[in-house]
Parts: sequence; structure tokens; C-alpha cells
Amino acid sequence: MNTEEYIVGVDIGGTKILSIVVNEKFEILSRCRKKTKSWLKDVEPENKIIEIIEESIKEAGTSNIVGIGVGAPGPVDPKNGIVINTPNLGWKSFPIVEILSKHFSVPVVLDNDVNLGTYAEWLLGDNSEAKHVVGVFPGTGIGGGLIVNRKIVHGASGGAGEVGHMTLQIDGPLCGCGKRGCLEALASRIAITREITALILRGESPYLFEKVGTDFSKIRSSVIAEAIAIGEKKVESIVRKAAYLTGVAIANLINILSPELVILGGGLIEALGKIYEEEIQKAVKEHAMPFLRKKVIIEIGKLGDDAVALGSALLCARKKEKIKETK
Amino acid sequence: MNTEEYIVGVDIGGTKILSIVVNEKFEILSRCRKKTKSWLKDVEPENKIIEIIEESIKEAGTSNIVGIGVGAPGPVDPKNGIVINTPNLGWKSFPIVEILSKHFSVPVVLDNDVNLGTYAEWLLGDNSEAKHVVGVFPGTGIGGGLIVNRKIVHGASGGAGEVGHMTLQIDGPLCGCGKRGCLEALASRIAITREITALILRGESPYLFEKVGTDFSKIRSSVIAEAIAIGEKKVESIVRKAAYLTGVAIANLINILSPELVILGGGLIEALGKIYEEEIQKAVKEHAMPFLRKKVIIEIGKLGDDAVALGSALLCARKKEKIKETK
Repeated sequence: MNTEEYIVGVDIGGTKILSIVVNEKFEILSRCRKKTKSWLKDVEPENKIIEIIEESIKEAGTSNIVGIGVGAPGPVDPKNGIVINTPNLGWKSFPIVEILSKHFSVPVVLDNDVNLGTYAEWLLGDNSEAKHVVGVFPGTGIGGGLIVNRKIVHGASGGAGEVGHMTLQIDGPLCGCGKRGCLEALASRIAITREITALILRGESPYLFEKVGTDFSKIRSSVIAEAIAIGEKKVESIVRKAAYLTGVAIANLINILSPELVILGGGLIEALGKIYEEEIQKAVKEHAMPFLRKKVIIEIGKLGDDAVALGSALLCARKKEKIKETK
Repeated sequence: MNTEEYIVGVDIGGTKILSIVVNEKFEILSRCRKKTKSWLKDVEPENKIIEIIEESIKEAGTSNIVGIGVGAPGPVDPKNGIVINTPNLGWKSFPIVEILSKHFSVPVVLDNDVNLGTYAEWLLGDNSEAKHVVGVFPGTGIGGGLIVNRKIVHGASGGAGEVGHMTLQIDGPLCGCGKRGCLEALASRIAITREITALILRGESPYLFEKVGTDFSKIRSSVIAEAIAIGEKKVESIVRKAAYLTGVAIANLINILSPELVILGGGLIEALGKIYEEEIQKAVKEHAMPFLRKKVIIEIGKLGDDAVALGSALLCARKKEKIKETK
């Protein structure tokens, strides 16, 4: 008889929901992934999430599920299991932990997706002995996950780690959050798109004009990488600037928290990793204090799209261990 | 017979050394304070520190000293009890804890002075129930002390919390650390002095010209406060700008760490508290995320020159408690 225990990890993303089932070694037995757009009008999100979790469990061929971890974008209240605000699902102060633990009758834990992505890349990576870790994930926005003394930093509000809203340029460009000069306003994919739009309008990126025309929604990380690969230097310059600024924010985090490990992830890193690594190393050298940066390892995460779901499962396993310890 | 236990708290400052003796309620029984300049050529600093500690113990009239806490400026290695670099005393990798614990035969703890100032203002202040605290101390430099989950954040190097070297203006003015655009280069007393020097040269601050002439070493926080009090608006504007920029750095720390308490201290705050409070509140409103800043208390520390020595004694007491607990 198989007595092994299994855990479900769920990643509630901006555009998709992913549920995985892992064994005690955190090997993935099954994956169920659905785009959000296709069903959002017809089904309550929580029912769809339950359906996706059930499908992943069925596919894994086990009934011995002992816990569920959930990662959600934006601010969450991990202590009370509440998603504070997830506009794309229409959730405000939504008690996802209560709903899932009632339905599945197992312990459920919740955290912010970038926290969990950082958590998984750290604990399943080559430097899991690190005690202090900074994760930075540049994409449409720029998320951050912070680990101090081997614990995720939540702060008083539960929502610490808003690295993307670090002010780097007072009176800089307007950010989605309403303030000016945030890292996100300077270096997210939206900021890069803003700059590239001007390039295309000036006729300075023939490749991107050919590929996306004037539809800026088509300026994805991958097509930007292609333009750079064929030699469009001005596109490269825009990306390098964004990467460098991301590196300045990382240098600030090194000055503040003195981590031994910095993990990079997210869409821009996946498509443009080499440029990001180069510029971030340069910025860290120029903006972090020598005695704080000298032993810092900066690496690109290896878990790709599974990072958040794996982090959710890991967090759940770790909380269960603690419950056992105190029993 | 008096069985009460007493602890020594030592503040190794830039210009003076202070040793206090406290009882179990952290009431100060004695204070011994010596300027560094007067003896530094004649005595080894460690011997002078021993002498000052012994004098404070003698004055307190007790022999039941159970521990010593030491605060030192600049980077320290609290785990190994080593002062990494304190130029004004000529110390490099100096094993102060070993020296003092051998001499006094009691446990000795060491930490950075701003960490300990924050620690004391927090634990002896009105908001000691806070779990996450940020301390910012603007003066000649700008120091930071960070508390996460009720513990001082040291990071991997032991020297976390270099808030003064957060980059706020890429390619900004040169900092003492060698990089550009650090908060310290923009908003420390040295930065304010730099701006005021230009004012005086242009004849735009008659009061300061009368008071300090052309000797910029005399531009102290107190005389700056006087110039503002008599209505020199350009001097006020320079201070307000520095205070606002300090507030932007605090906003960044709120976005990153989500503390419930921010403590302000240091020479500039003591002399110019009202302006600093106003500008910091303004900057936090403009640069911190609403859900992260809404419950944050920003307050000026009340312990003045005793803060670091009291923090040293508190840290020592807390470590001793832990040793007891695990026995």
C-alpha cells in the first residue's frame, strides 16, 4: 500500500490557474492548467479553482492529499488566508483558504505569488542553505519576495516586498499605483513597451514594426528578444536601461537586507536573461556597498512556470512540519 | 542584601564613549562619558573603554554586573563580536567582545549603534508591541536599524540596514562611500552643509554668515535651526528638501518591509524635528503604497544620547534571557 503523502500547489496567475500535485520529494505528478479568460464569465472563480484542483488530483492518481498551498497575485493576508485584492478575478477580501479547506477538508495555506516563487527557487535550488534571500521578478509589473532568517517577510500588513514600488526617480514617470518614479514605472514590461512604442513611431525599429505593426499589445518579451538578436541596437538600449534600473533596485535591497542570494525570475528574465544578468551585475557593483555585495550570488530561477505552484506546496509542507513539531 | 542584577551599556560613538549601568527595569544608575579626542593619542582605545566602564560601575555602587552590551558605529559582526571597521578609533576586525568578556568575566554582546538606538527606542517606547520596526537616524551620516519579527536584521554579512546608501538619484552627487546618489549624499548634514555653503557664498544667509563666517565646520544642526527660526527661508528650503528625501527613503522601506513603527533619531531630528516630521509624512504619503502606510506610526525617539547605550544593555539582557530559557 502506498502511504506517501501528497500536496497540491496552486498558482492563481493573472491569466491562468495552475494546479500541481507533488510527492514528498516535491516531484510533480500532475499539472492542470487553465486560462482564466475562457471561463471567467460563466463560473465563479472559486468553483473553477476547485474543479482545476480536483482534476489535478484525479490525474495524479492519489487520494492521500494532506494539504493545499495557494499563491495569489497582489496583496494577500497570509495569516487569515484572505486575498485582499485580485482585480482580474474580481476578488476583494476573499477568504480563499476557508473555502478550500472546507471543501477539501485539509489544511490550506496562502501567500503572495512572488513570495512563493522566490521560496521555491530558493529551497529547490542550489543555494537552499542561504538564510537571507531577495527575489525580483520583472514582467508586466515587478514583484519582489523577501526571505529573512529563512522566513518570508510579510511585515505588519502581510503585504511587504513591494519592490516594484520603490521610488528610484523622484518626479519620474507615472506608475500604475498612482505615484511617480517607481521601479515599475521605469523598468517593467509596460515601461519598456512605452519606450519601444516611441521607437516604432519614429521608424527606428523596422523589425518590431514588421512584427507588431502599431498594435502595442503585441510587444511581448519574446519579440523584443528577437529584435535584439537581429541587431536592433536601440531596442537593446531600452532593455539594458530597464535591466540596469532593476539592478539599482536590487543593489538597494542588498544595502538594506544583506542577502546571500538574489533570485531573478519573471517574463523579462526568461526572454532576456543574459542582458538582465549583465546589467544587474553592473548596477549592483555600482550601487551596493562592497562589504554587503561581495558574497552575494545572483542567479536566474530554474523552475519557470511551476515556481509559484511549487512554492505553494513547499510552504504548505513546511507549515505542516511545524504543526507536527509542536504536537 | 541586594540581589538585583545590573547590566552595563556602552556606546562607542564617533566623538565620545558613554558607559551606563542599568538595573532590571533599565533605569540608569550611572553615566560615564568621555570625549574621544582628549585621550586617543595616549591610550589604547580598548583600555580607555575598560576604564570608562569601570568608572560607571564604581559610580553605580554595585558589583553585581551580569553582562555588558556594546554599540559601535559602522559595520560590525555581532555573531563573532568583532568591530569590522571604526576608522576614528583605528579599529579593523577588532575583537572587542573577547577583550571585554575576558576582562570583566561576564557575557558581552555587540551590535551596530543605530541598530541598538532603534532597539531601545522601540522596546522602551510606547509602541513596543510592534513586530516590524524601521529606525532612521540622519546626522553626519544617515544610519538605519531594521527589526523584522522582533529581531534586529543583520543579513548575511552582519551589516544589513545601510539605509544611508540607498540610491535615490542615479548619477546624483558623490557619496562618502564612493558611489553616487545615495540618500546620504543627498540628505545628510554633510549634504545640507554643502548646500548652505553655497548659500553663504552667495550672501543669501546673513544669519549664518554672521554666526559661522566662512568656517563650514561650524554649520551645526543647532545653528541651522536658529537661522530657520529667524526666518531664513532658503536655509529652511534646503533642510526641507533633505527631510523630504529622507522621507522618500523611509517610504521605500515601508514598501519593502511594511513596518508598523518608524523611529526617527539623530542630530538633525533632534534640532529640526518639526520640519523633519512634516516633510517625512508628506514624502511617505506620496511614495509609500496606501495599504502599506496606512497604519504606520512615525515618531521621534525620546531617549536622546542614551539610546545606543540603553539598546546595548537591552540586547544583553534579552540574550541572557534566551540563554536561561534554553538551560
